[in-house]
Amino acid sequence: DSPFDYAEHPHRRRNPLTGTYVLVSPHRAKRPWQGSQEEPPSDNRPEYDPDDYLGPGNSRVNGTVKNPDYKDTFVFDNDFQALLSDTPDGAVGNPDNDDLLVARAVKGKCRVLCFSPKLNVTVAEMSVPALRKVVDAWVDEYATLSKLDYIAHVQIFENKGSMMGCSNAHPHGQIWSSSWIPEAPATVLANLAGYTSRKGTHLLEDYASLEEKSGERVVCSNTTFLAVVPFWAVWPFEVLVMTKKRIPSFESFGEQEKEDLADIYRRVTCRYDNLFTTLFPYSMGIHQAPTDGTGQDVAHFHMHFYPPLLRSATVRKFMVGFELLAEAQRDLTAEQAAARLRACSEVHFNDAKK
Amino acid sequence: DSPFDYAEHPHRRRNPLTGTYVLVSPHRAKRPWQGSQEEPPSDNRPEYDPDDYLGPGNSRVNGTVKNPDYKDTFVFDNDFQALLSDTPDGAVGNPDNDDLLVARAVKGKCRVLCFSPKLNVTVAEMSVPALRKVVDAWVDEYATLSKLDYIAHVQIFENKGSMMGCSNAHPHGQIWSSSWIPEAPATVLANLAGYTSRKGTHLLEDYASLEEKSGERVVCSNTTFLAVVPFWAVWPFEVLVMTKKRIPSFESFGEQEKEDLADIYRRVTCRYDNLFTTLFPYSMGIHQAPTDGTGQDVAHFHMHFYPPLLRSATVRKFMVGFELLAEAQRDLTAEQAAARLRACSEVHFNDAKK
Ligand SMILES: O=P(O)(O)O[C@H]1O[C@H](CO)[C@@H](O)[C@H](O)[C@H]1O
Ligand SMILES: O=P(O)(O)O[C@H]1O[C@H](CO)[C@@H](O)[C@H](O)[C@H]1O
Repeated sequence: DSPFDYAEHPHRRRNPLTGTYVLVSPHRAKRPWQGSQEEPPSDNRPEYDPDDYLGPGNSRVNGTVKNPDYKDTFVFDNDFQALLSDTPDGAVGNPDNDDLLVARAVKGKCRVLCFSPKLNVTVAEMSVPALRKVVDAWVDEYATLSKLDYIAHVQIFENKGSMMGCSNAHPHGQIWSSSWIPEAPATVLANLAGYTSRKGTHLLEDYASLEEKSGERVVCSNTTFLAVVPFWAVWPFEVLVMTKKRIPSFESFGEQEKEDLADIYRRVTCRYDNLFTTLFPYSMGIHQAPTDGTGQDVAHFHMHFYPPLLRSATVRKFMVGFELLAEAQRDLTAEQAAARLRACSEVHFNDAKK
Repeated sequence: DSPFDYAEHPHRRRNPLTGTYVLVSPHRAKRPWQGSQEEPPSDNRPEYDPDDYLGPGNSRVNGTVKNPDYKDTFVFDNDFQALLSDTPDGAVGNPDNDDLLVARAVKGKCRVLCFSPKLNVTVAEMSVPALRKVVDAWVDEYATLSKLDYIAHVQIFENKGSMMGCSNAHPHGQIWSSSWIPEAPATVLANLAGYTSRKGTHLLEDYASLEEKSGERVVCSNTTFLAVVPFWAVWPFEVLVMTKKRIPSFESFGEQEKEDLADIYRRVTCRYDNLFTTLFPYSMGIHQAPTDGTGQDVAHFHMHFYPPLLRSATVRKFMVGFELLAEAQRDLTAEQAAARLRACSEVHFNDAKK
């Protein structure tokens, strides 16, 4: 009888940020590799397209507004915002009474951030100075939105690739600011606070130092940040980027942190693209302190990358059936995924070809 | 100033089964209808294909086993099980100590259930007597698996359509039984128990009677079951099917319940197919009492349908970005979705053409 080994045997792993578990089936990774290695995508995207409604000088989707002739980044209000600034207050039902119909009015502001005037680049292909402009825009937006009295939280994210619901290939991200702290960041803050109150230390500081020491799940790092495939990863090549020392939010970022964020953003996404020689799709999101003043003593700046690809540019993991109805599941272990990402170059395949 | 109206204004709704919220943006449903009505899919699927590895008499995916020449349903062990019956016991870390690396060995058994020998039918196109055989197979599997000493929970589900990760068009579902109660059903059981201990009544009985009275979110019903788009639906056309009176599990199903389940399964999926005149993709899963003896006093048999389509056979809702990183979001309200499903015929478009 061999003893339990999480590199070999089916098991569950616990995510201390959410308190939830993921089922890991490492024995299935021994299946014959069915997905074939794909050809690099044909790379004839134009740098500029007059029909690109996020392009500089072009008309937007509603036809009435024109974008300025911007040179680096450009931020504007989403043309179809999911949140509005002037929703009347009100509510139906009360959860504390166990009412079954509970609804509450919310407010917010949704922004779009174009990363570059060029249509034919992605974060992975951008330079650190160009990405530094993106970081600066995030820092600005976070500061500006937090001054609005009806905003409690600022969610910065990027959907990359049509597989991740992105309908416009122009490199861009979104910023949804809201009058409440949404589910996922609220849960994380509660778990960070619980850990600190019990242990007296900070969860992600302890985790970063554990991972740096072990090295097994590390993808890359710089002075400020550590990128790992977290022990509890759900998506096949999920990556968690965290500051090694706790920094609550952009508010406390200095020059070094901003520069290092641009650096790690490029390096992680470049490794992604090189993994299957494709423009690797993902959703990225930043968790940091809410802007309503709460959580300052426990919030810890981190970024999640949730990419769907599993075996090749066209073979993805589906979060369906058992995953939706019962529990998240993966085959490849976090350690295997990290080893593969560590082996990837930080020179983009499109640049290597030149 | 108009007062808050959840048919008009952005708001959050609470799911009492999970305790989580969904952001609803009804004002966005007023956007011009961008997706066009699709043509019915060309319907030239053969009834039998020698390369269909779930077909009667055919070789399975591993090439060594042959399926019997089955006439209605056929159940077998998944050829690539995510769980094994003989994992050695063991664990790493302890969540009660706030350890950051926590893993625990698990066991289980994964089964596949072919719904019909015919390749060219789906649940929506099957007859009630044929679906009754599927229900009987579920009841049998639930009973047999619950007798295995290492099984605590039996998760029955169906992934329909390639959009939902289903790689084989042969009508089939899966049954993953496990040595622990997975996240989602465990959370639901805890919420059902909390409600009952506070109110003395059963959450889903109260909810079913509320919805029957209002009618606003009802899709269809029969003697035993009520199908609604739940107030807290996340997926555009999500449907919850529950027994009107609490029945913990298949163990307490009689003739009437089995017959009625076959009936409602057909009627809900048929309405789905007719909505966009397509073979409507979804993940379906059944929540009922665990098989380890717990939860018998609160468990309430129900089925979830999580379908991704939003506007047409090809325009889907993506659960990405804000949804993955912050909170579930929808545009269409549950009431609008229910009205559209109520307007659909229960005669399948393929039969109507004949
Ligand atoms: O077992 P299948 O049909 O190959 O796979 C499908 O269902 C499973 C259970 O929901 C998922 O884990 C897979 O991602 C999905 O593609
Ligand atoms: O706003 P977009 O880019 O049109 O839409 C995309 O991102 C949103 C925020 O994650 C999602 O709600 C949509 O489902 C997705 O397609």
